[in-house]
Amino acid sequence: MEQYLEKPGGFMGSNTGYPEALIVLLGAPMDLTVSYRPGTRMGPQQIRAVSIGLEEYSIYLDKQLSEVSFADLGDVAVPFGNVNESLERIRQVIERVLEDGKKPFVIGGEHLISYPVIQAIHHRYSDLMVVHFDAHADLRKDYVGEANSHATVMRKTAELLGPKRIIQVGIRSGIKEEFEYAQENTHLFKDRLEEAMPRVKEIVGDRPLYISLDIDVVDPAFAPGTGTPEPGGCTAREIISAVHSLRDCRVVGLDLVEVSPVYDPSERTALLGAKLLREAILCFG
Amino acid sequence: MEQYLEKPGGFMGSNTGYPEALIVLLGAPMDLTVSYRPGTRMGPQQIRAVSIGLEEYSIYLDKQLSEVSFADLGDVAVPFGNVNESLERIRQVIERVLEDGKKPFVIGGEHLISYPVIQAIHHRYSDLMVVHFDAHADLRKDYVGEANSHATVMRKTAELLGPKRIIQVGIRSGIKEEFEYAQENTHLFKDRLEEAMPRVKEIVGDRPLYISLDIDVVDPAFAPGTGTPEPGGCTAREIISAVHSLRDCRVVGLDLVEVSPVYDPSERTALLGAKLLREAILCFG
Amino acid sequence: MEQYLEKPGGFMGSNTGYPEALIVLLGAPMDLTVSYRPGTRMGPQQIRAVSIGLEEYSIYLDKQLSEVSFADLGDVAVPFGNVNESLERIRQVIERVLEDGKKPFVIGGEHLISYPVIQAIHHRYSDLMVVHFDAHADLRKDYVGEANSHATVMRKTAELLGPKRIIQVGIRSGIKEEFEYAQENTHLFKDRLEEAMPRVKEIVGDRPLYISLDIDVVDPAFAPGTGTPEPGGCTAREIISAVHSLRDCRVVGLDLVEVSPVYDPSERTALLGAKLLREAILCFG
Amino acid sequence: MEQYLEKPGGFMGSNTGYPEALIVLLGAPMDLTVSYRPGTRMGPQQIRAVSIGLEEYSIYLDKQLSEVSFADLGDVAVPFGNVNESLERIRQVIERVLEDGKKPFVIGGEHLISYPVIQAIHHRYSDLMVVHFDAHADLRKDYVGEANSHATVMRKTAELLGPKRIIQVGIRSGIKEEFEYAQENTHLFKDRLEEAMPRVKEIVGDRPLYISLDIDVVDPAFAPGTGTPEPGGCTAREIISAVHSLRDCRVVGLDLVEVSPVYDPSERTALLGAKLLREAILCFG
Amino acid sequence: MEQYLEKPGGFMGSNTGYPEALIVLLGAPMDLTVSYRPGTRMGPQQIRAVSIGLEEYSIYLDKQLSEVSFADLGDVAVPFGNVNESLERIRQVIERVLEDGKKPFVIGGEHLISYPVIQAIHHRYSDLMVVHFDAHADLRKDYVGEANSHATVMRKTAELLGPKRIIQVGIRSGIKEEFEYAQENTHLFKDRLEEAMPRVKEIVGDRPLYISLDIDVVDPAFAPGTGTPEPGGCTAREIISAVHSLRDCRVVGLDLVEVSPVYDPSERTALLGAKLLREAILCFG
Amino acid sequence: MEQYLEKPGGFMGSNTGYPEALIVLLGAPMDLTVSYRPGTRMGPQQIRAVSIGLEEYSIYLDKQLSEVSFADLGDVAVPFGNVNESLERIRQVIERVLEDGKKPFVIGGEHLISYPVIQAIHHRYSDLMVVHFDAHADLRKDYVGEANSHATVMRKTAELLGPKRIIQVGIRSGIKEEFEYAQENTHLFKDRLEEAMPRVKEIVGDRPLYISLDIDVVDPAFAPGTGTPEPGGCTAREIISAVHSLRDCRVVGLDLVEVSPVYDPSERTALLGAKLLREAILCFG
Repeated sequence: MEQYLEKPGGFMGSNTGYPEALIVLLGAPMDLTVSYRPGTRMGPQQIRAVSIGLEEYSIYLDKQLSEVSFADLGDVAVPFGNVNESLERIRQVIERVLEDGKKPFVIGGEHLISYPVIQAIHHRYSDLMVVHFDAHADLRKDYVGEANSHATVMRKTAELLGPKRIIQVGIRSGIKEEFEYAQENTHLFKDRLEEAMPRVKEIVGDRPLYISLDIDVVDPAFAPGTGTPEPGGCTAREIISAVHSLRDCRVVGLDLVEVSPVYDPSERTALLGAKLLREAILCFG
Repeated sequence: MEQYLEKPGGFMGSNTGYPEALIVLLGAPMDLTVSYRPGTRMGPQQIRAVSIGLEEYSIYLDKQLSEVSFADLGDVAVPFGNVNESLERIRQVIERVLEDGKKPFVIGGEHLISYPVIQAIHHRYSDLMVVHFDAHADLRKDYVGEANSHATVMRKTAELLGPKRIIQVGIRSGIKEEFEYAQENTHLFKDRLEEAMPRVKEIVGDRPLYISLDIDVVDPAFAPGTGTPEPGGCTAREIISAVHSLRDCRVVGLDLVEVSPVYDPSERTALLGAKLLREAILCFG
Repeated sequence: MEQYLEKPGGFMGSNTGYPEALIVLLGAPMDLTVSYRPGTRMGPQQIRAVSIGLEEYSIYLDKQLSEVSFADLGDVAVPFGNVNESLERIRQVIERVLEDGKKPFVIGGEHLISYPVIQAIHHRYSDLMVVHFDAHADLRKDYVGEANSHATVMRKTAELLGPKRIIQVGIRSGIKEEFEYAQENTHLFKDRLEEAMPRVKEIVGDRPLYISLDIDVVDPAFAPGTGTPEPGGCTAREIISAVHSLRDCRVVGLDLVEVSPVYDPSERTALLGAKLLREAILCFG
Repeated sequence: MEQYLEKPGGFMGSNTGYPEALIVLLGAPMDLTVSYRPGTRMGPQQIRAVSIGLEEYSIYLDKQLSEVSFADLGDVAVPFGNVNESLERIRQVIERVLEDGKKPFVIGGEHLISYPVIQAIHHRYSDLMVVHFDAHADLRKDYVGEANSHATVMRKTAELLGPKRIIQVGIRSGIKEEFEYAQENTHLFKDRLEEAMPRVKEIVGDRPLYISLDIDVVDPAFAPGTGTPEPGGCTAREIISAVHSLRDCRVVGLDLVEVSPVYDPSERTALLGAKLLREAILCFG
Repeated sequence: MEQYLEKPGGFMGSNTGYPEALIVLLGAPMDLTVSYRPGTRMGPQQIRAVSIGLEEYSIYLDKQLSEVSFADLGDVAVPFGNVNESLERIRQVIERVLEDGKKPFVIGGEHLISYPVIQAIHHRYSDLMVVHFDAHADLRKDYVGEANSHATVMRKTAELLGPKRIIQVGIRSGIKEEFEYAQENTHLFKDRLEEAMPRVKEIVGDRPLYISLDIDVVDPAFAPGTGTPEPGGCTAREIISAVHSLRDCRVVGLDLVEVSPVYDPSERTALLGAKLLREAILCFG
Repeated sequence: MEQYLEKPGGFMGSNTGYPEALIVLLGAPMDLTVSYRPGTRMGPQQIRAVSIGLEEYSIYLDKQLSEVSFADLGDVAVPFGNVNESLERIRQVIERVLEDGKKPFVIGGEHLISYPVIQAIHHRYSDLMVVHFDAHADLRKDYVGEANSHATVMRKTAELLGPKRIIQVGIRSGIKEEFEYAQENTHLFKDRLEEAMPRVKEIVGDRPLYISLDIDVVDPAFAPGTGTPEPGGCTAREIISAVHSLRDCRVVGLDLVEVSPVYDPSERTALLGAKLLREAILCFG
């Protein structure tokens, strides 16, 4: 009977048990602090579901998932309505994954989930660099009075890591104060990705690298399924290339956030997310 | 020029300034504790937008909005990510509306917003009764560890008001513990609305009444735009009749919650919400 | 770490391993012979996904899933483009489930999948009766020349089981020849479900019973996500009651077919399917 | 080659040339005066497209389309932006159809198209009665200053035909003045269809009858694809029965209006429209 | 109470009363002459609604809305079904805005609304130039016999202003006659925007400039919510840059037309419209 | 009457009877072997329906459809559930079209339909070359055990035509084995279209050419309505240019496949398909 059955399951090709896996996929369906359109809690579920529409082989990299060991652990159980407890649970799970010598690749959920992941990773890698792909600077001090917000996540991260540790790419929205803050505290590239990436790689050098990829860096034509779409972004091709361009970096963790399926009946946002994850697993695994 | 201009605006026919209004409409776009599909924060905005598709006259009641004085105050500004502050702000605004001698009619947002509204009203009417239309009992003690949740709102309310002050109508979902709790603490009608309403009116009598109407009491065929749809509910006709059947009651406040526009491209959920509000304003104004 | 993780997975509350389970859930995402709008292959996946929005307790039956033992085996792997091989694989899997002493509950996929399931069950229960809920008679001899079709499935079944073994309920569409065939070979109720069900139960008596439920028996208002919607059907309430009315029958297998998610952005068709499955597991488990 | 080809085409089963046809189907995709949500111009096209999903046989009537002679002439070419010219063209085409001794069955388009059709028919049948199924009374004198409007069509018709020639069924929306006008000039049934229909038939008697069916008489749950949905209407079953109940009347023309496909991704509104047309052709052909 | 309330309202950051405002925003929800898919009447309402998802600061221009004075007057009340009266009302309102020394920025509605706006502006600026961004030439003499049409608007404008006063950019659709007309009477750039804009600026020089921007100049990937989408257009980035490139011109009025929300559940068309308006207000205010 | 009527019909401007036509349009709505999301059977119908939104004149080519003779024959009647019979019927119809000295332009349906079309054409042109635009290599030996599949169609074609007769453009997905096969047997361009096309033309030379265009070669931003979307593709502009670049080739047949309307409520995928067909008819007619 077994040969005819297909189990409902994890990200495509998730092929190893946790013990042997180098890369560990985790969903973090937290969706509490977004100010505009909610829905990212359905992101991990849909990214897994559509991943079956992709091949396990990448023609770009001439490599397939079976050459890398990774496991999909499922989702962190986040209590809706409680931001602090949600962040704390994510942090604890990531701590454990790191203790076990693995690299966490986290699927959001909203962007604030990057913070506890980076906290845990920074704890181990004090010289951590972050490459932040996003339409928004996310450098607010607070948002409608709240310091814990998807709009403050990179400000909190900058304060955690120290100045000039974050490289922001694709940014095209924010308030004036954020850009003033960026001048002192981050590297911010408004330029098109192709122009920015060579310089990004130079800045990172051989320091440990965390990649935080908010899907809204891509133009809403290519990624309509997101909470705060911002017209004027890059294409799917450009973001795929940008990830490839970091191939030789020492990546120790990654997140892909803000996929909000309900705004995209074509499912192409989740598919782009799944493809970026596949490429990232193949590049950094 | 003025005669050719139409201002973007509030609920249809909102015709009086705040000082003269008897009924005060308020949006409470809080959307933080839902466990399944979010999106109710867009409820107040869409209910106002579609209300222009309805007439100001009700053929059911032979009465029109111009015969009642009501004002639309706009939305309570709720800080996303902070449940307690959101609830507190709603409570304070309602307190003030009551001080000014008006009846608050609140548009959700998620169901938890009923709690601060009822808190403020109960403060003035200690013998307050609540009629609760819903598919779900909402009587959980906590939800994934959180006491403040859309799934606990009627439990919290029952504990505030004392036993047998809540009459629950249309209920068709919950966990076993909720129904055990209901037996001691609320009046719960699983029956169809038409059968329940005469008995509901009897129980209420001439005590002050608050109506809390979760749109998911209606079958998802008639109200697909909601967060936790539960097949098997009543029709649009039945809920309109149920509201009419309370016409002679001493209603001191009301809410209409859980309209989540994104799941309903036809906009009929918001239209039903707007029509129920119109009928309620005409019945109780 | 484990306490904070949720695995991606099967139908809600699937709580037992295969060896102990009495009821076995299986997806059969075959979607090959429909003539109008395809898409039922996504049915099993979405029914599982939305099932997390339902409670494990049924207020109708005062019973919860933990009181029944059932396992979700995942989907039968069907080769697209090959009808015969797909049917054969389904038949073999069901044979094995029956050998192991379990009751198969199958989620379609298109209606033709009922045939191999009934074949396997009839092999064990020669006096098998079938209750067939559907908008369409499905009694064609062939469809555009094909004998294997979702429009011929009950004709093939009738020929397998012998005359008057199928009881058809809710039928409101077909060609003249089908109704002529029905007069000799099946029991066909055009009447409303409430009127038909007492008589249905009488006919079944204590013979072993298979239930085949095409979601399009329900009006498209309640179940828009299906391939050949037919206006004029029953409500969600009525189909739930109809399933309950068979509670004391000796049910040995069941299928729920023709849920086609793409036509229903509100997901209420899949939710109704999931709820009917929950009620069926509780009734017949 | 011919035997393997299917032509793109008209309403299902349109089986006769114009010369032999008794009933003539015509689209009137005018969509100019609606005040809320436009889109009815796509109605005729989608009703024809989905009609292939229906059978040509009616189980309700035990009759099939091949027993009736009807032809689908296509659409009247209406110039967008010019109300008067559009109405005039429709009138002229209908005049010609009547001259040729045929019954026009017209698919809207917006409700105003009923006026030129009724004008032409009334010219031949001076004692014409109209049965008007609608959620809205459509008895305004003008709408935002315009006398030609979908909201005035029955007022204009009443003025054309004289008092008490229109029987309005299913009405649940309008302004006060409309209902005052109705008392003197029409028969208006707010009641449910099943209760109204026997009385409707009595009033019509054996006079020539025109049926004008605005799809929004049906609840938006069953017919979301319309311009001014009004919650609280009848079911698909009820409207189908209402049409059947007029079977013995002397119907000389009919329209089905206000299907607006874009608001209904499930296509069930157009399907209901197509099914009502099939039943009408079988009843009155 | 006031500090916790948000009024339903106008375009984001609309910060001044009419008397002080330099730029005046007006909706013109006329939607009468489109030949294909209607729906632009909902454009102004949705552009305002989604504008709250954008920042008031532009990173491109390093400038924020608070540095410019503008007021949102709401919509011109257009009578549906009456093209001439609608155009006349728009013209009168614009006349008055100009008399008061302000610059009108108009949100459509269909493209024909540009005509009365340009009429009023040309009355004051006889040497007016028009930059027309569009996929379609809109230079027909008439459309299905109508001279007042969204397909004739630039022909009418060319006849009003005299030869070579209109510069058409992004054009990729039309009939042969339109391009023959263009050769004599307009400047028409089929080329990509980046190549055309430097030349456009040269032609305009320091003459007063009106910008008419039909959103369908952008490819339907970036702006699917429009009535006559034409594949092969520019990107969101390109149109934003094109507007920026006119920054030093003497802009005296502007319109943004043909946003039709119902075809775009992701709302990105309206968002692009809102962002273009923000950039235009910042550039020309 | 005739002058005011528009017939429901074929592809826009289909202006000749079959006998005189040089190009013959045919739908092949087969949709049986796709592994992921079905729905291409609705492709031909929707491409025809939206084609009325396009002009008959091409500004790119300065040519209009009236200058070319082509006829739309409607669809091949394919029996659902029977792959072999469907393929055979398509082949027979194409044979006949070729016998009559015409060029077949076929609208899918799924990609497998290319095989019988190419079979018939290759029978007449033994030195036939194929240009294959696609995101996927479609070079699998079998798919889940089936040799007849949309994923094997170019492998079967390569085996039919012999080595190096197929030129694959835009490919960005496949399994490793497919690319190994391609090295020996096809010309495969992963590069961007603009770079590949000059070389493609060179390889084709003056041999007879068949063009097979899978719409998913275009990025899902521009063509979301397809079964297996693959992010990272070309733009609408690029594919239009690529077709133009083959203008001087000796094209003897063409197909456009995998448009699946249900995933694209904006209809822009079908519009792009219709525009590509118009350009192809003008280029090769």
